[in-house]
Amino acid sequence: MEHLDTASVEEFLQPYLPSAQNKLFVTATWAQSLDARIAAAPGERTQLSGLYTKKMTHFLRAHHDGILVGKTTVQADDPSLNCRYTPGCKSPRPIILGSPGARQWKVLKNAELGYPQPWLIVDSSEDGENLGFEVIRVKNTKDWPEVCEVLAARGIKSLMVEGGARVLETCLLSGVVDSTIITIAPVFLGRDGVATSPSRELRPKHFGWWTAPHVPDSVYAASN
Amino acid sequence: MEHLDTASVEEFLQPYLPSAQNKLFVTATWAQSLDARIAAAPGERTQLSGLYTKKMTHFLRAHHDGILVGKTTVQADDPSLNCRYTPGCKSPRPIILGSPGARQWKVLKNAELGYPQPWLIVDSSEDGENLGFEVIRVKNTKDWPEVCEVLAARGIKSLMVEGGARVLETCLLSGVVDSTIITIAPVFLGRDGVATSPSRELRPKHFGWWTAPHVPDSVYAASN
Repeated sequence: MEHLDTASVEEFLQPYLPSAQNKLFVTATWAQSLDARIAAAPGERTQLSGLYTKKMTHFLRAHHDGILVGKTTVQADDPSLNCRYTPGCKSPRPIILGSPGARQWKVLKNAELGYPQPWLIVDSSEDGENLGFEVIRVKNTKDWPEVCEVLAARGIKSLMVEGGARVLETCLLSGVVDSTIITIAPVFLGRDGVATSPSRELRPKHFGWWTAPHVPDSVYAASN
Repeated sequence: MEHLDTASVEEFLQPYLPSAQNKLFVTATWAQSLDARIAAAPGERTQLSGLYTKKMTHFLRAHHDGILVGKTTVQADDPSLNCRYTPGCKSPRPIILGSPGARQWKVLKNAELGYPQPWLIVDSSEDGENLGFEVIRVKNTKDWPEVCEVLAARGIKSLMVEGGARVLETCLLSGVVDSTIITIAPVFLGRDGVATSPSRELRPKHFGWWTAPHVPDSVYAASN
């Protein structure tokens, strides 16, 4: 990663980082536009984070055991989901919710290079076998408490949920989220973008703002 | 207004305040949730600003000749649209876009108390007479350059556009906006809220962030 002095954002994030607790610690995190869009159009990869907030994401990944995204995000972005915070830093385990289908996804290629083997969470409506993932069966992939319980039983103590929009919205509403960390980029992506807005009002209890120096982003963080 | 030391936000806003120029200076400003909602439901008045950002709004009003809102905002909020920044400070002229219908609106009552007489901008599709407003006829209330030209001809040099969502969106897209100032409150209002998202992508050129001390809001400001 570029050399950037991110001490200030790391200090700001301390109260929102995973802490030891009885249940799995869940962090919901994403980057959005001023009009709360995470992408300019469905299925489109849209760069929103600046240099500082990009590095911040890798700082956060370094503090989590697992990193979860939905199948739609895998299909749209084919993300690496590894940690590039410092050379050789431990990467969280990639966990995909729902089957993205057969392809040489980056998370699979990374596993061949020594990164953690990715897990795939599916329910009885999806197959998921023979795609290269280690398959975890749950009753209902939309049941966040069940998903968290299954992951905790497999030794995951802290989980970062990074997208997409529907995954984040349902996760926020389910009550399993401990911290929410949002990068807000100074752009309007417009009405056709992919919105992140839960189906009802949510008022986080403790929160703070951090602004990147000389670069465009602002970061909002909250804990319950 | 409550006594609050707002020197820091006033200093931050200096580059975004109206300056002398050939055309009317237009500031688009609103308060929104993290998910870019200005109200929890259509027609509902939703408190989003904190103490600092509320005072900031009155500081901004003190720097503008006119303050414009759409008829829907008048019908939903019945706003005073006056300036309560300091006791006795000059209030901008209230300007309503489209006819809100007959009622003893606060802007009309305020005029009886000595505040500026409110103007009503209508096109040929609306009557607007005999409501107590001074009526201004334009060809098309949706044509922002025409609206701005008519107001400039009447001596308005600086205009604050405060809502509602459709008025702000079309104003932003029309190219007449010089400054954009958004208060972001740390709450999600949810999917049924009234969204502010223009119909296409917009990338403001110069911008900054300010965070209220000890209170929840962050302010985003941009100029073109």
